[in-house]
Formats: sequence, structure tokens, C-alpha cells
Amino acid sequence: MLVVKVGGAEGIDLDAVCDDLAAIAGNGRPVVLVHGGSHETNRLAEQLGHAPRFITSPSGYTSRRTDRRTLEIFEMVYCGLVNKGVVERLHKRGVPAIGLSGLDGPVWQGPRKTSIRSVDGGRTTVIRDDYTGRVERVNTSLLAELARSNILPVLTPPALSYCGSAINVDGDRAAAATASALSASELVILSNVAGLLERFPDPSSVVRRVSRDELDAAGKFARGRMRTKLLAAREALEGGVPRVVLGSAIGPNPISRALEGEGTVIS
Amino acid sequence: MLVVKVGGAEGIDLDAVCDDLAAIAGNGRPVVLVHGGSHETNRLAEQLGHAPRFITSPSGYTSRRTDRRTLEIFEMVYCGLVNKGVVERLHKRGVPAIGLSGLDGPVWQGPRKTSIRSVDGGRTTVIRDDYTGRVERVNTSLLAELARSNILPVLTPPALSYCGSAINVDGDRAAAATASALSASELVILSNVAGLLERFPDPSSVVRRVSRDELDAAGKFARGRMRTKLLAAREALEGGVPRVVLGSAIGPNPISRALEGEGTVIS
Repeated sequence: MLVVKVGGAEGIDLDAVCDDLAAIAGNGRPVVLVHGGSHETNRLAEQLGHAPRFITSPSGYTSRRTDRRTLEIFEMVYCGLVNKGVVERLHKRGVPAIGLSGLDGPVWQGPRKTSIRSVDGGRTTVIRDDYTGRVERVNTSLLAELARSNILPVLTPPALSYCGSAINVDGDRAAAATASALSASELVILSNVAGLLERFPDPSSVVRRVSRDELDAAGKFARGRMRTKLLAAREALEGGVPRVVLGSAIGPNPISRALEGEGTVIS
Repeated sequence: MLVVKVGGAEGIDLDAVCDDLAAIAGNGRPVVLVHGGSHETNRLAEQLGHAPRFITSPSGYTSRRTDRRTLEIFEMVYCGLVNKGVVERLHKRGVPAIGLSGLDGPVWQGPRKTSIRSVDGGRTTVIRDDYTGRVERVNTSLLAELARSNILPVLTPPALSYCGSAINVDGDRAAAATASALSASELVILSNVAGLLERFPDPSSVVRRVSRDELDAAGKFARGRMRTKLLAAREALEGGVPRVVLGSAIGPNPISRALEGEGTVIS
């Protein structure tokens, strides 16, 4: 089993991702795709006059401020525009696919954060009406049933909280939880950067190999979203996934290139 | 098996629909829900500066003009906002649910119209870039598998064309095709009117009973969208569904009231 996460940043070519997925799935390898939609969500939020906001936690991780209106906009883009766009692309390439949010089934469940702390200019504030959380349970029986039926699952946040609310969860970490639960042999995380960069943003400074023991030391190179990707990689390794590749979603055959070792290979 | 269609017009109370669904599903009756999202789609389309347009066919049926941008807006609302909102409501009421568009699986497949004719002020024009069609094939094995797992399917347009495109399909007729394919014993179609009205818009003039033989004659009372609902009812009867009820989604227990015969019962 291969789990692929493709981000939603500007410049990512979903057609190239789907071309590659069709080739891989066509060779009989079972795949689960997890996708994002951050750029389009920002665009729609701006258009609807509910500008996107981001929070930095005291430990330095950034996430989207998700009030109820943001959650609705998020669902429109992630579960509507992007998810159905990817499913349509796969069908067009002859790959039967099914688009599911974490709510559906439910595929992903976990706790909602009762409060989150946001650091802004040295000041810490506590936010209590945020719809965020993390994935603790993955519905492996539903995903296995779909795999048996040769239907490629296309998964996206939000997840379902234990109280029945939709919660925004980090897509990279949700993909890691999914790969762990499915005992995947590989997790590929694609974004609009070439991997972990030793000298950000110099693309020639990609760190090629990171062992589990080197993860802490490698973390010092990570900027912004790459910090969360390294955390996801660590969680996948700890969950039993032997190999995680952080690769670029720019250009043709992005999944195959990552599987061949282009990017940062963590194992 | 019971198939319920709930429309997306203004004033429809999805909380009441989900309360009722939870009671019915809780009693062990398998249900499939099909929903619309027209009002919210119109609102979002206006907000995004791509105003909704409607087409009247030469035979008098109205439908949404669905160019590619409209299809995206449609997917955001139907597959994102409304579908995930309904799935979340059901989970909150203890009913495991799964939201699927017709693209997913795919659940619904059919032909895309190569061209449609639009009548406007006596003038007929031909439109060739419309993404509309109808449901010919329903994925009964996927829906039966979900029913066996006690997961309530929440279905919504678009469907998948035979060429792999997303196509806008009429929700009432898609529900009829689904009820026929699943050999449902009843199809309930809820909207913001009380049923077929003999003297539109007088709500006290509901036609209570229509036999199959009386459908043609009853059609003369139908205005606007009610014409399509009668067509859907006819298709369901012809597909072997013994009883179709056109009921109101306004107020508490709308499904139970329709099952008890409130509205227009066609059998």
C-alpha cells in the first residue's frame, strides 16, 4: 500500500499528479491519495470577505484559524472543488475513484482541541471556538473494502471529532496516520518545495537522506510548513511506515520521482 | 429500502430532516438520502460574480445553465457545504453517514447532453458547452455494501458522464433512478411546497392522491419545478417503486409525515 499526500499550495499541478497516479494504480499497486486545498481556500475566503488567518502555536507550528464560517469555506474548497476535481481527473484517466472527507464513514476520527494557544508578537492568546483537532482513528475496514473493489480513495480534511463536529486537521499528519493504520510500505508527501532544504529557499540544498536518529538534528533546517511535514514523517515512522519521502509536486511524474528517491527520503 | 430526496430551496430545515432521519434509521429501516443545494448555489454564484442562469427547454422544464465555472460553484455547495453539513448533522445524531457525489465510486453514471435547447421569449437557442445530463446507471453494489455496514449514504449531484466529465443532473430524477435501482418500497420527495397544488400557490389545494393513470391529467396543475417532480415520480413508478410521496420539508418530522400520507401520494 502506498499513501500519497499532495498539498494545496499555488503551482501544484494536479493533472500531473493524476497522470502519475493512473500509471501507478494501473500497474496494480494499491494507492490512497490525501489532498489539501490551502491556496484555493485562501482565495475563496478573500472573495467572500472572510479573510484567512493563521495561528502560530507556542511550539512554532502554524495552522489555519478555523472558526465556523472558515470551516464552511474550507469544506466548499477541500470537499467540493478540489476533491471532486481530483475524482473527475482520475475517472477521466480510467481510474475508478471515490472522494471522501474524514467525516464520511467516518474515515478519520479524533479529539477536537478544547482550546488553542496563539503566539503573536510575543503575546499569547487562548482561542476556544476553533474547529481543529487531530486524527486518532482511521477507518481501515472501509478503506480496505474500497481497495478490494479497486476504487482509489481520495481523502481530505475535515475529520470528525468524538463529539460529532467537523474538525480541521493537518493533512500531512492525517496522511501519516492513514499510512500507519494501513501498514503502508511508503508515504510520499508532495508540496511546492523540493524537500527539506538545508539553506532555505535554495532548491539545490535538498537534504537527500535522513535517518530516524537524525530527525531531531534535521529539524533545525525546517521553515514554516516543513516543520509539520517533518512531524508527520516522524509520526509515520513511529507508526511503522518504513519510508517517507518529502518530494516536489512541480513537474511531471512527481510521485514516481519521489519513489525513486528525488526529494528528502526519511527511513 | 426508503429513498428520501430533500431539496435545496430557501426555508428547508435540514435539522428537522436529520432529526427525522435519525429516528427512522434508528428503527432499523435502511435509508438513502439525496439532497439538493439550489438556494445556496445561487447565493454563492452571486457572491462570486457569476450570476445563476436558468434554461427552459422547449418541453417546458427548467434547469440550471451549467458552464464549467457554474459546475465548480455547484460542487462547492452541493458536495462541500451542504453534503458535509448533512453528514455532520447525522453523525451528531448518532447515525453513521457517508457523503458521496454521483462522481464517487461512481454512484451515478449517465450520458452528457451534447447540446441543449433553451427557449427564451419565443426564441430557441442551442447551447453546446453545458455540463448536464441524466442518471442511467446506479452503483447498487456500493450502496448495498454501505447499507450492510449500517452507514447511511448521503448522495448529491453531479453525476459522472460516460466520458468521465462531471455532469449536473436533476436531483429528483436521480433520486427516482436510485429508488428504482435499489427496488425501494417508497420514494419521498420533499421541497418547500406541500405537494402538487390544484390552485398554485394555495397550500390548502394539495392533490392528496394520484394514481398512475391520473398522472397525465394531474400534470396540468404543475408549475415550475413541480413538473420535474412529477416526471421523477413517473420514472420511479415505471422503475418499480410502488409509492412516491411529494411532501413538504417545512416543519418537524417531514419524512414521517410524508410516509403517513401528508402531501401528494402517487401510487
